[in-house]
Amino acid sequence: MTAVGIDAIEIRTGKLRLDLAETFAPAKNEDPSKYTKGIGIEYSSLPDVYEDIVTMGANAAKALFDRKGLSPDDIGRIDVATESAFDNSKPVSTYIAGCLESVYDGDFHHANKGERKFACLSGTQSIDDAYNWIRAGRNRGRAALVIATDTALYERGDPGEATQGAGAVAMLIDSEPDIVALSTEQGYGSADETDFLKPNQQFPSVDGKRSIQVYLARMREALEDYESAAGDTHPEDFAYFPFHTPYPGMVRKAALLGYRHITRDTDVEEALAAEIGMQPREADFDSREAYEEAIRTYMDDLKGTSRYQEWYDRAIDPTVDISGQVGNWYTGSVHLARLSALRAAAEEGVDLAGGHLLVGSYGSGAQAEIHAETVREGWRAAVAPIDVEDQLNGRYDLSFEEYELVHDVHNHDKEVEVEAFTQPDGEFVFTGWGRMNERRYEYVE
Amino acid sequence: MTAVGIDAIEIRTGKLRLDLAETFAPAKNEDPSKYTKGIGIEYSSLPDVYEDIVTMGANAAKALFDRKGLSPDDIGRIDVATESAFDNSKPVSTYIAGCLESVYDGDFHHANKGERKFACLSGTQSIDDAYNWIRAGRNRGRAALVIATDTALYERGDPGEATQGAGAVAMLIDSEPDIVALSTEQGYGSADETDFLKPNQQFPSVDGKRSIQVYLARMREALEDYESAAGDTHPEDFAYFPFHTPYPGMVRKAALLGYRHITRDTDVEEALAAEIGMQPREADFDSREAYEEAIRTYMDDLKGTSRYQEWYDRAIDPTVDISGQVGNWYTGSVHLARLSALRAAAEEGVDLAGGHLLVGSYGSGAQAEIHAETVREGWRAAVAPIDVEDQLNGRYDLSFEEYELVHDVHNHDKEVEVEAFTQPDGEFVFTGWGRMNERRYEYVE
Repeated sequence: MTAVGIDAIEIRTGKLRLDLAETFAPAKNEDPSKYTKGIGIEYSSLPDVYEDIVTMGANAAKALFDRKGLSPDDIGRIDVATESAFDNSKPVSTYIAGCLESVYDGDFHHANKGERKFACLSGTQSIDDAYNWIRAGRNRGRAALVIATDTALYERGDPGEATQGAGAVAMLIDSEPDIVALSTEQGYGSADETDFLKPNQQFPSVDGKRSIQVYLARMREALEDYESAAGDTHPEDFAYFPFHTPYPGMVRKAALLGYRHITRDTDVEEALAAEIGMQPREADFDSREAYEEAIRTYMDDLKGTSRYQEWYDRAIDPTVDISGQVGNWYTGSVHLARLSALRAAAEEGVDLAGGHLLVGSYGSGAQAEIHAETVREGWRAAVAPIDVEDQLNGRYDLSFEEYELVHDVHNHDKEVEVEAFTQPDGEFVFTGWGRMNERRYEYVE
Repeated sequence: MTAVGIDAIEIRTGKLRLDLAETFAPAKNEDPSKYTKGIGIEYSSLPDVYEDIVTMGANAAKALFDRKGLSPDDIGRIDVATESAFDNSKPVSTYIAGCLESVYDGDFHHANKGERKFACLSGTQSIDDAYNWIRAGRNRGRAALVIATDTALYERGDPGEATQGAGAVAMLIDSEPDIVALSTEQGYGSADETDFLKPNQQFPSVDGKRSIQVYLARMREALEDYESAAGDTHPEDFAYFPFHTPYPGMVRKAALLGYRHITRDTDVEEALAAEIGMQPREADFDSREAYEEAIRTYMDDLKGTSRYQEWYDRAIDPTVDISGQVGNWYTGSVHLARLSALRAAAEEGVDLAGGHLLVGSYGSGAQAEIHAETVREGWRAAVAPIDVEDQLNGRYDLSFEEYELVHDVHNHDKEVEVEAFTQPDGEFVFTGWGRMNERRYEYVE
C-alpha cells in the first residue's frame, strides 16, 4: 500500500512574545516557577497588530511552497483547522488561498477548500481527511495543504491567560511523503463534555480541573480504541509520543497515565515489580475508592523509577520543547510536538528512519485521537532546514503594558489603535476591513 | 469497486412557517408574486422557541436511527455541517451525540465527531469526507452520520429576509447504500470571493447581485473541472440535476446556463439550430461585449424552446419543490433538492434504479462542487416513507407579529421571553443555558 502522510512542515509564530517568568509573573505578583516549572511555559507567542490567523497561516504556507517549489496546481485541497475563526460562514482557507494567489502564478480554483472546527483537535482531523482523500483515489496526483492556525487568548485574569499562544503550522499531505506516513488504524475517545467552550464568545469558558480529567479520560479511551484496532502498544515500540500540549505540565500527567496503561501485562510491569510492586487490579479491591487510591500510590512510585524517567526523557521530553517556548497554539499544538521531537532527533543525530511515533491529539468538548506514524527516509532533510529557532529568537519582547495593548488589539469587542511592534518583511499582513466587514490582506515585500 | 454513498435520509423542518405571499408580502406592502413567482418560495420554515440547529439535527438523526434500527455502535463518524454554529470551539456534533446517547443504549465514544464550515457547501464536503473514510478502509465496518443543519436568518429588512429557512437533513453514508452511490470524480470551482459572509456576526453581509454572478461562475468552473475528470456530460445522461437552492429562482438561472454549457457541440445544439441558431463562439466576435450580448440573446431564445422547457420540467423542476415550501436551509439545501427529485420520481412511479443524478453544491465565499450519483435499487423503499409532507403540513402558521417575535428569539444579541407556538412531542428540545454558557437539551416524550 502506498504510504500517505506528511511530506513537509512549516511553522509561523506570532512575532511577539510575553516572558512569563520575567514579565507576567511579577505583574501578577506570582512566583515565576509557577509558570516555568508548574505549567512549563517560558514564553507565550502573540500576534503583532498586523498578524492574525490568516497571515500566520498564509505565511507558513508560503514558506512551504517556496521550500518545496510548489505552484497552486500541485494542490487539490486546502483545509484550515482553527477555533479562532472570525467568520461564521466564509472559511479561513479562502482568505489564505487568496493571499497565496496574489504572489504565485496560477490559482486554486479547482482545489477543495474547507474549514474544520473541534477545539484543538481539528488539525489532525484535517490531516486525516486529506489522507482519506488520497487513499480514496480522488486527488488526481495532487497533494493537500493542511493549515492549523490559532490565536489562543483568554479573558484577562483567567487562569488560562498564562497558557496563551499564537501561531500556525502548515503541512503538506501527500503520497510517498518525506517526513512521516500515517497508520490506517486510529483510536478515538469522545464524549459530550462541558470542560471548555466558546458559546457565542471569543474567549473560552473553562472548567480547568474538569478539563484535565477529560483530557486524561478521553486519551485513555482513544488508546484502548487504538489498541483494539492495531494491537497492544509497548513503550519501546515508539521513538516519541507527541501529544496535544496545552502546556507541558498537562503532558507530564498524560505521559505517566499512558505509561502505566501500556506497560500493564508487559515485561516492563514485571521488571518494575521488585521496586514498586505490580499494578493494582480492581478485582483485588473491595471498593473503587480503595483501588483508585492504590493506583495513585503506584503512579507516584512509578514516576520516581529511573526506568520511567529514562523513558520520559527519551520519548516525551523532546516533544514539549517548542511548546514551552510559544505556549498553546490550539490546533497546531500536537503538530508542534511532533516537530519538536523530530528536530531534537535531528540535532542529536538519532537514526529515526523506519521508527515510529504514537501521536495523541485532543480537543476539548471533547475528543482524543491516537494513531501511529512511521518516520520516512527523508525526514531529516525535510525537518532540519525549518527556521524554528530563528523565528522564536526573532520575536519582540513585550513589556506588560505592551502585552495589555496587544490583548486589546486582538479582542473582537474592542477597537484600539496600536502601533506595530515589528516591521513586516516579506510577508502577508492584515490591512483593515472592507465594505462588507471582510478582513483584507496584502503581501509586503 | 464497492459502492459508497447515501443509505438513508431524514429531514427535520423548523416547526413554524411564514407564508410569504399571504403574511410577509402584505406586511411589506409588496406584490406577493415577487416571492411566489420571482424567487419561488411560498413558505419559510422557522424554528419554534425550543428548537435550534442541535434539536433539528438530533431529531432528524433520531428518525434515521429509528427507521434503520441503528444503535450508536453502528456509527464510526458524526460530522455536522453548519454555518449557524453558536460555539467557536465545541462542535455541534458533540451536542447531537449527547442527545442521542440520552435515548439509546450504548454510546459514540469511539466515533470521530467533527464540524465543517463553508457557507452552504459543507454538507456535501462532509459526505465526501465520509465517503473517503470508507474508501480508505478506516471505517471498521461502521457507517457515517452526516447532519446538515442551519437556521438561515437575515437582518430584518435585508433583501435576503424572504429567503430564510430552518431545518436539518440527516444522512447515513455507508457502503452498498440504498439510495445513491457517489462518483469518485468530482469537479471544483473555487475562488476567494466577498459575496456573502458573516464576520463576527450572526446575520450575513450580502452583496446580492455579486452573489448570483459568483454562484454561476463557480458552478461553471466546477462543471468544467468535473468534465475534465469524468468526460463530457449530456442533458439526457441524468435523470435530475439537484443543485444548491438558495431559492428556486437562482436554480432557474443556473439551469439555463448549465444547459447551454453541456449542450454545446452536441446533437442538442444542432437540433436546436434551426429554431435559435448555433451557440455564439467567442472567436466569431470582435469584442467580449458583443459576444456576451449574443450569449444573452441565445439564452433568452433557448429558454423559450420546448426542448429546453421539457428538459427543465423533467430534470430541474422536481428538485426545487421542497425548497419552495421551506426556504433556504443553507447546508441542507442541495440535499433537500436531491430528496425532492427522488420523491417526485417515487410518486410518479419512475423507474430510477441505475439512473444518474448530477449534483451541484455551492457555498458563498465561494466554492461549487459537482459530482455524479447513481441511483440504487433500494431507493424507492428508502425514500417513500420519509414524512416530508406530514412535517411540512404540520407547521404552525405565523402571523407577521409572531414572526417578528420568533426572529428576536433566535437573534443571539436579543434576550426575549416568548411562549412556544407548538407543543413538543417525542423530540429533543432546548431547555436553557448552563453555568458555563452551554446550551442544554432534553428529550420530551
